[in-house]
Amino acid sequence: MSQRQNPYIAVVGGYECSGSDYALAESVGELLARAGAVVVTGGRHGITEAACKGAKKAGGTTIGILPGADYEEGNDFVDHAICTDAGSSRNNMIIMTADGVVAMPGRYGTLSEIAFALLYHKPIVSLGSWGVSDRIIEVASPQEAVQRILQEVRS
Amino acid sequence: MSQRQNPYIAVVGGYECSGSDYALAESVGELLARAGAVVVTGGRHGITEAACKGAKKAGGTTIGILPGADYEEGNDFVDHAICTDAGSSRNNMIIMTADGVVAMPGRYGTLSEIAFALLYHKPIVSLGSWGVSDRIIEVASPQEAVQRILQEVRS
Amino acid sequence: MSQRQNPYIAVVGGYECSGSDYALAESVGELLARAGAVVVTGGRHGITEAACKGAKKAGGTTIGILPGADYEEGNDFVDHAICTDAGSSRNNMIIMTADGVVAMPGRYGTLSEIAFALLYHKPIVSLGSWGVSDRIIEVASPQEAVQRILQEVRS
Amino acid sequence: MSQRQNPYIAVVGGYECSGSDYALAESVGELLARAGAVVVTGGRHGITEAACKGAKKAGGTTIGILPGADYEEGNDFVDHAICTDAGSSRNNMIIMTADGVVAMPGRYGTLSEIAFALLYHKPIVSLGSWGVSDRIIEVASPQEAVQRILQEVRS
Repeated sequence: MSQRQNPYIAVVGGYECSGSDYALAESVGELLARAGAVVVTGGRHGITEAACKGAKKAGGTTIGILPGADYEEGNDFVDHAICTDAGSSRNNMIIMTADGVVAMPGRYGTLSEIAFALLYHKPIVSLGSWGVSDRIIEVASPQEAVQRILQEVRS
Repeated sequence: MSQRQNPYIAVVGGYECSGSDYALAESVGELLARAGAVVVTGGRHGITEAACKGAKKAGGTTIGILPGADYEEGNDFVDHAICTDAGSSRNNMIIMTADGVVAMPGRYGTLSEIAFALLYHKPIVSLGSWGVSDRIIEVASPQEAVQRILQEVRS
Repeated sequence: MSQRQNPYIAVVGGYECSGSDYALAESVGELLARAGAVVVTGGRHGITEAACKGAKKAGGTTIGILPGADYEEGNDFVDHAICTDAGSSRNNMIIMTADGVVAMPGRYGTLSEIAFALLYHKPIVSLGSWGVSDRIIEVASPQEAVQRILQEVRS
Repeated sequence: MSQRQNPYIAVVGGYECSGSDYALAESVGELLARAGAVVVTGGRHGITEAACKGAKKAGGTTIGILPGADYEEGNDFVDHAICTDAGSSRNNMIIMTADGVVAMPGRYGTLSEIAFALLYHKPIVSLGSWGVSDRIIEVASPQEAVQRILQEVRS
């Protein structure tokens, strides 16, 4: 049986994002990595790139679950690019692979990921993302996001 | 190039539903079939069963895109059961296969389907479902749901 | 529980094929449709187009389980185009959806479909295709292919 | 653009295997890890467990691309369990994720993986596996398997 010594935390959010959201996502990635979490993302641009970049700055490990068939479509900060060629169905796989989710600003792809997190009863915190359920824990900073999601995942 | 003479309309909603929602979904299916639409669903219980049942009452055609590998998991009213063994990733395939979506009451699986409909810019009407975007057209009855979605799909 | 009054038979083979193989596949599709079978294919070119074309000539029903997200990528003879956006993973879905398989000449995509048919213990006949298992029944004509696969599926 | 400093090599083979094949697969995994390759497998039992076990013995990194939704279905030697819930479609994802493939004895699931490797023109060596194409390089030992696949991947 596969064991996990460290939690796997998905960071989800828009393919395009503002500079300030990029900076916040980078902090989330960095703090997750410092706490020993593996960062799981869709492996491409915007929020997910920022989270991977932050994680690598702290020497962490990043997994990118890609929509296509070619690992080179992953961003520069993905350690392990997984090629699904499943298009947006890979959103589902990101969430299933993770133990908990940090949701950041994004549009409908992000909403699908939040929906899957709720469907599977995975802990989820939102830093400026969709508030579609009272099971989503609203947080106000990267520090709070990381602290709360790790607390939830471990409980 | 594959042509469609008739629109393919997905009806999405809860695996479990109230008796009154079941009746509404049956009406939606029946009216869609009478208008010549093919009804696309996840092929299982609750709202999707009702929509298939209604469509068959009107002599329509129903497609069930199943999460598992066995066509027998489809409900009694599915004409063409498609076996994906893709779990909830098949939610994505239901939406991609359809030209438009009627969303009815449901929980997080339904929310994922609405998210994919919005992601792909597919027309979507809501009869008592999630109101997560102003691109979702709120309707008040099965008649209005069917009239509006067919109008949107044809425009 | 979804019932099938008629068998669903997959016809698999090359995206590109010779004129004589195209003619054979057209006969297979036509004979399957005459016998009441629903023809399931990958919905695109070569052998699968021919099988769909033959089935439609006999007034049959054809299902195309497509690799992409757009139903228009289906060939002219697909009645029900299913959009998976799953790339070659849809090969697996074609086989799961079918009750039996007619394999015709093709390369490695076809081989993957034969492998899945064997994996799921689905009946399979080969009309000039890969002979990788003695569970594959070799046949010499479209007539024999259709007769044998229907016999196997019904037994 | 995601870079790979080290090659990702899939080891595929039967879910059940003989003790001697298990030992060979363990050697393959160990030699791959010593050469710096990341070992990609389906993450479960038999050949893939042995390959992961061998890789971990040499301090390597292992990825398990699982058919289900729960990372605990991975074997004890999987570092990064990816949950696809895609059933046997994940066979396709294993091959797409890898740069090259070592095929070992197995049945039809293994054959599907070999078919996908050939479909995508990925280098592939066979240590006692299916000989369905002259593009498959037959090798006689774990040492030769690892040496040849790394040579092919780098060329």
